[in-house]
Amino acid sequence: MQSSQARIDSAAKAARAASRRLALLPRAEKDAALHAMANALEAASDRVVAANDQDVERGARAGMPESLQDRLRLTPQRVVAVADALRDLAALPDPVGDVVRGSTLANGLQIRQVRVPMGVVGMIYESRPNVTVDAAGLGLKSGNAMILRGGSAAADSNAALVDVMRTALSAQGLPADAVQLLDGGREDVGALITARGLVDLVIPRGGADLIRTVVTQATVPVIETGVGNCHVYVDAAADLDMALAIAVNSKTHRPSVCNAAESLLVHQSVARDFLPKVLAELAGAGVLLHTDEAASTAARVAGVSYEPVTDEDWATEHLAMEMSVGVVPSLDAALDHIDRFGTRHTEAIVTGDRRAARRFSAEVDAAVVTVNASTRFTDGGEFGFGAEIGISTQKLHARGPMALQELTSTKWVVEGDGQVRV
Amino acid sequence: MQSSQARIDSAAKAARAASRRLALLPRAEKDAALHAMANALEAASDRVVAANDQDVERGARAGMPESLQDRLRLTPQRVVAVADALRDLAALPDPVGDVVRGSTLANGLQIRQVRVPMGVVGMIYESRPNVTVDAAGLGLKSGNAMILRGGSAAADSNAALVDVMRTALSAQGLPADAVQLLDGGREDVGALITARGLVDLVIPRGGADLIRTVVTQATVPVIETGVGNCHVYVDAAADLDMALAIAVNSKTHRPSVCNAAESLLVHQSVARDFLPKVLAELAGAGVLLHTDEAASTAARVAGVSYEPVTDEDWATEHLAMEMSVGVVPSLDAALDHIDRFGTRHTEAIVTGDRRAARRFSAEVDAAVVTVNASTRFTDGGEFGFGAEIGISTQKLHARGPMALQELTSTKWVVEGDGQVRV
Repeated sequence: MQSSQARIDSAAKAARAASRRLALLPRAEKDAALHAMANALEAASDRVVAANDQDVERGARAGMPESLQDRLRLTPQRVVAVADALRDLAALPDPVGDVVRGSTLANGLQIRQVRVPMGVVGMIYESRPNVTVDAAGLGLKSGNAMILRGGSAAADSNAALVDVMRTALSAQGLPADAVQLLDGGREDVGALITARGLVDLVIPRGGADLIRTVVTQATVPVIETGVGNCHVYVDAAADLDMALAIAVNSKTHRPSVCNAAESLLVHQSVARDFLPKVLAELAGAGVLLHTDEAASTAARVAGVSYEPVTDEDWATEHLAMEMSVGVVPSLDAALDHIDRFGTRHTEAIVTGDRRAARRFSAEVDAAVVTVNASTRFTDGGEFGFGAEIGISTQKLHARGPMALQELTSTKWVVEGDGQVRV
Repeated sequence: MQSSQARIDSAAKAARAASRRLALLPRAEKDAALHAMANALEAASDRVVAANDQDVERGARAGMPESLQDRLRLTPQRVVAVADALRDLAALPDPVGDVVRGSTLANGLQIRQVRVPMGVVGMIYESRPNVTVDAAGLGLKSGNAMILRGGSAAADSNAALVDVMRTALSAQGLPADAVQLLDGGREDVGALITARGLVDLVIPRGGADLIRTVVTQATVPVIETGVGNCHVYVDAAADLDMALAIAVNSKTHRPSVCNAAESLLVHQSVARDFLPKVLAELAGAGVLLHTDEAASTAARVAGVSYEPVTDEDWATEHLAMEMSVGVVPSLDAALDHIDRFGTRHTEAIVTGDRRAARRFSAEVDAAVVTVNASTRFTDGGEFGFGAEIGISTQKLHARGPMALQELTSTKWVVEGDGQVRV
């Protein structure tokens, strides 16, 4: 058996060769391949669902909770949705070849900065099997060869999905190695994230542990995706009905995802009016409340149960029906709290005051700042980017929802008629 | 004495605090500070030159070659040039606040992606003391706090330059910690490149060893700057006079820098005409020639001396008056050679054939591709960016000359009137 290093080297070299083909493909051929992959997945629905059954049964035997089993499960209907996501990608513009900027220099040289694919992109993820297809599709459309390393819980599903897509690529006359799936052990991850010169970018998508491991051990460039300890700040000048709707939606609409809010900060001048209402509504929706002293008083007024909030609560991304709630004396205090506990993902202010909105937008250091809108809008689909590959919480290269454009680099093309430096 | 970790933590925290001020500074205040720094440097010229004398004398005693002593030396005239570079930066547009893209979503949300500073940027370099001032100026103009780690050869010069600039910042009412200089040992570098959460970006600029060390050991995001094994390819359809000028300029104009050419590839159909001329001119300029079999024959025809080229020569960035020269049977062979030996920095083709130019531009994977122009144009100043912080040879975030825009990240601002996800 090959070592991980040899296996990754060989996969990455095959990916590089494929990426050279992909980089030059015109949009029409990439879109045709996306449709071919979508059709092939639907045609192979029985096989994909059968493979997925193996994963779900294995999970059930190992005691996987029902909710996770449901996230893992592929039904014929869900296979159609996965295929449709590829068709949606085909309908999006191709970022490759876009001219980002350009000029004619004083010496007559014409320079232009043009979008080009990254080359070979590794993705390490723990999520549902639809991520496998989304990543393959985003990679193809942006001209990149993808090396995928999915979670072991979805191993059979991922193997079937990738096999179907590779066969479809070959049938289109394209290199199957544009999409590869790693099925080795943990050492494969180590080899992938240190394959300098062969892999252009690695994207970890999953829990905080996975991301930390990849970021600290990788020697190839990484885009960190996101832990989201997101806050909603209700300002002195907030419309309190709007604030109620935004706080509840940010927390409860889909609590398991990174753009869900984890903390609610309320300006003291509206705390007495606002807190009992919002705490009652949150508690009624099943949210466990961690409250500071003032919010605890309001909880007693509202007759809902609460636990005293700790610094650890403030710092925690619950990804569950739990929320930390506190009162702040000023916008500045809210900004300081967010700077201390936020994870630079998404931060929301509810206010009718222009100055407060402008200060919050300018001074909060986060990928996304929302004014009078739910934190849940930080999403590639919501922003109109199509399927997203993740949400970046780092500042380098991509920040916020990452999609096709974020999977590209650029190249300068300089055209002259004999210019030399003097 | 504090540990490196404690020292870097404390420097980075001071830098973070400064960066929050810098991020909100209007352009006018930043430009005024750049002028104040420039004036202060000129006013302190005697002190700066005296400190620099210490460095140069120390170098001379340690046997530093004359050419390096000259690179290190600051004269009153050079101090003026360094100050003028800051004034040039003041004249450039401010990237912070630029709206990169934006739209109004179907639900009425207005979203816009706005340029913001990176925050805290570390720079590790070995170069001449003017880099210290350029980096401080680029950082200030782009709203970033800079933590600088210069080479020990320029320690006294850098200390004087940074002290003068910090005093000028304070006198402008700005935080001196916007520019900090590390003067500890190697452990400082290790602590800086692993200060996750405190440092947003590290840029190594120097030799291949420095860059490799930083890239493999860093856990904060890094932009790799460039080793440049650049090629000039003279196509079958080249204007041979133009090719001669471009080949000689690319090699000899300033051989010690990364955008100098290291290799010359000549299409076989023009080799007999072109090679004797170009080899004679290169040899006449003092270039040591490493030649393949066909080029060796031409060298004998031209009556110039040569050494047989090896694969190691082809792979070497000489940064000196040396060049590897060979004949290729086709454009495809040139592309393969460049793919094998190039470092993705700058690659040039000389050709009158549109198709060859288009293929070379599209298929060569490099930060910059030039058509009928010297490789020496890969330079922030030449591209009109003002002073550059380095030339990126990676694909993430920045590729090619890096200047003000490349020192920024972005933030999404989402404005609504109560929108929630449904």
